Amino acid sequence: MAGGGTVEEELGGPVGTRHGGKLTLGSPPSLPSQDLAEFEQLTHQVQITEEGLRQDGFTGHPFYRCLVAEVPPESRSRDGHTIVGYGLYSFTYSTFKGRCIFMEDLYVMPEFRGKGIGKKLMRKIVEIGLENGCTQMRFMVLEWNRPAIGLYQGLGAEDLSAAEGWHFFCLQKDSMQRLAQGP
Amino acid sequence: MAGGGTVEEELGGPVGTRHGGKLTLGSPPSLPSQDLAEFEQLTHQVQITEEGLRQDGFTGHPFYRCLVAEVPPESRSRDGHTIVGYGLYSFTYSTFKGRCIFMEDLYVMPEFRGKGIGKKLMRKIVEIGLENGCTQMRFMVLEWNRPAIGLYQGLGAEDLSAAEGWHFFCLQKDSMQRLAQGP
Repeated sequence: MAGGGTVEEELGGPVGTRHGGKLTLGSPPSLPSQDLAEFEQLTHQVQITEEGLRQDGFTGHPFYRCLVAEVPPESRSRDGHTIVGYGLYSFTYSTFKGRCIFMEDLYVMPEFRGKGIGKKLMRKIVEIGLENGCTQMRFMVLEWNRPAIGLYQGLGAEDLSAAEGWHFFCLQKDSMQRLAQGP
Repeated sequence: MAGGGTVEEELGGPVGTRHGGKLTLGSPPSLPSQDLAEFEQLTHQVQITEEGLRQDGFTGHPFYRCLVAEVPPESRSRDGHTIVGYGLYSFTYSTFKGRCIFMEDLYVMPEFRGKGIGKKLMRKIVEIGLENGCTQMRFMVLEWNRPAIGLYQGLGAEDLSAAEGWHFFCLQKDSMQRLAQGP
């Protein structure tokens, strides 16, 4: 897997009016992915543990990499978090276009939105993609999430489900097992 | 990246009535991905070369892995091909569900369809996913490709675009560069 090394970057000076901060690779124990699940109204789907997250992102060849946005302690969230957003990505491949970076999650805590943190996370993931020779960044968006769609389209993203008719399919573990064992 | 080693498996005896065959990892120079592009009516999008395919799948940590379906020389296609189908996959990650295998392409040449080759390729990719601890296999399908959708749904696949409203977005290279360089 590509995209190695440590990434650390100032968040371009204060975020909003009071927040300094930085983007760093890692720290899944403190990922607010439960918050993301609540936002997406998909909490019933969360099956992963913190231990699983840590093992799968930081052992051997990682299944994913994660960039976190961190604010100084004095700017922490009401709940005491200094990691206030994250972008989780992996790499995939198109036989038409070559290397692709896939952004699985992009999340910023509600009280830190509107400060450009999401765009900075996304820019950094795009830079990592370009450094690794990717010609596309792909991601999935829920159709009711109009603010996110507006942001992405403003950055030039195309909705390929609308333009070409792509549907996202999934075989869950029980169906995988049935197929593996079946006739 | 996981899923290493050589996979070689008889295609469960004769495929159809006359074809012996096997599934093997590799051989991108002979991938019929141009055929896939024609089938998907997306040939104008093909930008990758055979050299790029070979380099990206077989150097260092691969961006993808590919399983090919090969028939004996006596059963080759009218055009002389013995590799008559392929499945290309990579790994990704869900902070809700953990490790996922992503099936980017599944293709069987028209004259070899209806013999179960596609299902065998898919089963092998599912097995590789399960061996690597994946709890989901994900893939994208064009909505007009009803035969494929019927096959996938028959195997228990869910259309998450229909069920949950997921849209597939893409930032092409020019937009990636603009975002990386912009304010």
